[in-house]
Amino acid sequence: MTGEFLQNQWYAAALSKEVPEKEPFARKICGEDIVFFRKPKGEVSALEDRCAHRHAPLSLGLVENGSIRCQYHGMLFDGNGQCVEVPGQEKIPSGARIKSYPVAEQDGWVWIWIGKNGSQSVSTIPSFPYFDTAKWAGFQKYFHVQGAAQLFVDNLLDLSHLAFTHKSSIGSTSSAVAEPDMEVSVEGDLVRGRRYIYNVEPGPLIVKWGGFAGQIDRCSDYIWRPPSVVEIESKFSDPTNKITIMVINPITPETDVTAHFWIGWSRDFDIDDEELTKSAIVDNTRVIMEDVVMIEGQQRVISSRGSLQPVAIKADRAVMAVQNVIKRL
Amino acid sequence: MTGEFLQNQWYAAALSKEVPEKEPFARKICGEDIVFFRKPKGEVSALEDRCAHRHAPLSLGLVENGSIRCQYHGMLFDGNGQCVEVPGQEKIPSGARIKSYPVAEQDGWVWIWIGKNGSQSVSTIPSFPYFDTAKWAGFQKYFHVQGAAQLFVDNLLDLSHLAFTHKSSIGSTSSAVAEPDMEVSVEGDLVRGRRYIYNVEPGPLIVKWGGFAGQIDRCSDYIWRPPSVVEIESKFSDPTNKITIMVINPITPETDVTAHFWIGWSRDFDIDDEELTKSAIVDNTRVIMEDVVMIEGQQRVISSRGSLQPVAIKADRAVMAVQNVIKRL
Amino acid sequence: MTGEFLQNQWYAAALSKEVPEKEPFARKICGEDIVFFRKPKGEVSALEDRCAHRHAPLSLGLVENGSIRCQYHGMLFDGNGQCVEVPGQEKIPSGARIKSYPVAEQDGWVWIWIGKNGSQSVSTIPSFPYFDTAKWAGFQKYFHVQGAAQLFVDNLLDLSHLAFTHKSSIGSTSSAVAEPDMEVSVEGDLVRGRRYIYNVEPGPLIVKWGGFAGQIDRCSDYIWRPPSVVEIESKFSDPTNKITIMVINPITPETDVTAHFWIGWSRDFDIDDEELTKSAIVDNTRVIMEDVVMIEGQQRVISSRGSLQPVAIKADRAVMAVQNVIKRL
Repeated sequence: MTGEFLQNQWYAAALSKEVPEKEPFARKICGEDIVFFRKPKGEVSALEDRCAHRHAPLSLGLVENGSIRCQYHGMLFDGNGQCVEVPGQEKIPSGARIKSYPVAEQDGWVWIWIGKNGSQSVSTIPSFPYFDTAKWAGFQKYFHVQGAAQLFVDNLLDLSHLAFTHKSSIGSTSSAVAEPDMEVSVEGDLVRGRRYIYNVEPGPLIVKWGGFAGQIDRCSDYIWRPPSVVEIESKFSDPTNKITIMVINPITPETDVTAHFWIGWSRDFDIDDEELTKSAIVDNTRVIMEDVVMIEGQQRVISSRGSLQPVAIKADRAVMAVQNVIKRL
Repeated sequence: MTGEFLQNQWYAAALSKEVPEKEPFARKICGEDIVFFRKPKGEVSALEDRCAHRHAPLSLGLVENGSIRCQYHGMLFDGNGQCVEVPGQEKIPSGARIKSYPVAEQDGWVWIWIGKNGSQSVSTIPSFPYFDTAKWAGFQKYFHVQGAAQLFVDNLLDLSHLAFTHKSSIGSTSSAVAEPDMEVSVEGDLVRGRRYIYNVEPGPLIVKWGGFAGQIDRCSDYIWRPPSVVEIESKFSDPTNKITIMVINPITPETDVTAHFWIGWSRDFDIDDEELTKSAIVDNTRVIMEDVVMIEGQQRVISSRGSLQPVAIKADRAVMAVQNVIKRL
Repeated sequence: MTGEFLQNQWYAAALSKEVPEKEPFARKICGEDIVFFRKPKGEVSALEDRCAHRHAPLSLGLVENGSIRCQYHGMLFDGNGQCVEVPGQEKIPSGARIKSYPVAEQDGWVWIWIGKNGSQSVSTIPSFPYFDTAKWAGFQKYFHVQGAAQLFVDNLLDLSHLAFTHKSSIGSTSSAVAEPDMEVSVEGDLVRGRRYIYNVEPGPLIVKWGGFAGQIDRCSDYIWRPPSVVEIESKFSDPTNKITIMVINPITPETDVTAHFWIGWSRDFDIDDEELTKSAIVDNTRVIMEDVVMIEGQQRVISSRGSLQPVAIKADRAVMAVQNVIKRL
């Protein structure tokens, strides 16, 4: 890893639905101000959010046939960042070019390549086929977090927080004392983990979703992929029912102390129940807000106190494994 | 004095009523983030507001039988800052301990020892027996100030500001030209002063409280104690009546440019008149706001201009005496 | 030019109507906090906004017969910054003096001399006799801008932005492709320019003001004077009508990233039409807000990215000429 943010990576930049059809969309990614806009057929371009002329934000401009025109003095830039028109003169100055970023759109997210050396194939972007299929039903939603991206990754990799932070939503007090069956393994640049808890009291949301009457088994398999995408497959079961929920959480640094967070949530049960989807949005938003309160609290402490050495506990194994992978990337 | 804030001192931290019976209470004192909570019998503990595990604020946690549990991954800390439980494992990591602070509760305030070397006896905390007795009636109230604590101390030590800042509340224009009989003396680490003005027009609030028809004598005796507690006994009298008001003002740095300020106000007259107490809260709040406007204005100038040399005048004698004591502490 | 802001210059400080008859008025000019107040006959004084005693802002004080009294401990300062009264003592301490600034009032603006070496004659303040005369009708208005003063100067010197930033107000899309007849010349410390466009579609406001039915000629002559005052005379004409509008824009740095901006707008037509004046205030406010959005966007980019090299285009000639004058001042 060189520099402040992991370089030469595909980062999630936005949900597809966040980037309008005909308007520019501004977002800071890894400390870089970027404007996104679409070509007439929908393809997304991403440029440095700054006119080459006098540095006005291009995101205040207008999209014209797949190019973007600065609304200050009218310079027009194509999707590659090349200025293609300067009002009032024929010659395009040679330096009238701004940085462009490789982008790809897949499974409802726009991904952007942050790095110096071209881009890896888009085939290295992980596939999450849970949001546009007849087999799954769910939603995707964006959150802004006043805390470093890594704090949210750590949160997701240590599910022991469910019994406390989420004890009144998806966790439960009794699971605090359960001895989970945990495994963490590293496969190349991936970290896989599992956390199986048997015969545990389900939290209220799980009861609601699975219609469980008593104790359940709760089996979560998760994968962390660089730079910071966490995929969690959770199976909840008792002898009468078994439900599966996929949660996809890309987390992208905005700055070193703020982050973009998305949840993609999808289920394999009651997939025609639109009311369930609506309530899942409400319920998951509440769960995420419980995390956000804690993460933003951590960030305030860390920002106020400077570097602090955490005390490691057993539950930190996945967190440690990920930190080791990041160190060598 | 070493460092930014006077060390090895009992600072006022909160009113007793500010620290709930069963909930944590967070406050920054002398730049340190601290969480306060009570044992079942009411005794107050104060810890560094940070879980040893991943630095989540403990003030987001829950109080359990005199200990406090982090609501992130559930670590439990006792009132001495020792971690006594880590969910999911039996062994407590050796470093799982956070800083604790000596605290004491007296006369309606919680006091905290800020310093490195244990604490002095609580008997060195000044006694203010005016808030829970049949002889006095009054109130205690907290204010947050966007200005350095010392600016508020200076304010209280130079009562010549009454004729200007408070000319429409507790001061009066005519007192501006009166020649006060002033004395300042240093006794060990205490600074005592008096400011007696004879035959002066009382301000509207004094007229209201004392029922005075004409001019009065206004005799104030004050004591400054380190680190920054000011006690003012004011006697207002004419030939027909004499009233005494005790004002206790602990002032505690929050940061180098913000402060906690409390007023304890108590009177020896009309002590059963609850309406008078209510109106005294309103009236004193107005008086304090007059000071706060001026102090926050000073702070803005000082923050904007950097260090500035004040021009000394006669009325500054107590301010100077206190600064000399602080320098050698 | 030495230092952050151009020194030894008359800067616009306020509109005459911004400085009350009997109250102090606070404004930061070129990074210096200044209090303005009037003598009984109206003459404006300007002092450092800080009491010499304990640095309370004098702008929280009261104006007394052309002097200003600090409302903290009552020191009184005359219009030259000399302390002339200290309550409670006869002797004025020798250092009780604060900085005063040369000021002048002319054509509806208060001007202040920022610099170290006395002041140039007020006769060097430019004359703008358009706001108190029977021949012209208009208004003067103040705006605060979250962007460097120079960015607004650059804006005014490059009118090619009219076709984009103001295309729905005073510009028009068709003028984007017109080839303007432009000239820029330097006369001593002045930069003069002209931008004549013939047979161009007028923007909606110009149509409204001039009652034009079709294309017009639009001839603008502008003068930049140091430190940063721009005067633009615009003539709009077709074979049936010709109207002239004078726009005076003093721009004064507040800090290095914020500015004070004024518009003085006056017309030579329909000068008894008060409704036109009212609507001109509304319309020009909208135009200025279009500029402010762009300038504040530029400032955000520049503040975030640090120094950036602009790409020069033809339309930048006046901007370059001004920068060359500033460099040698």
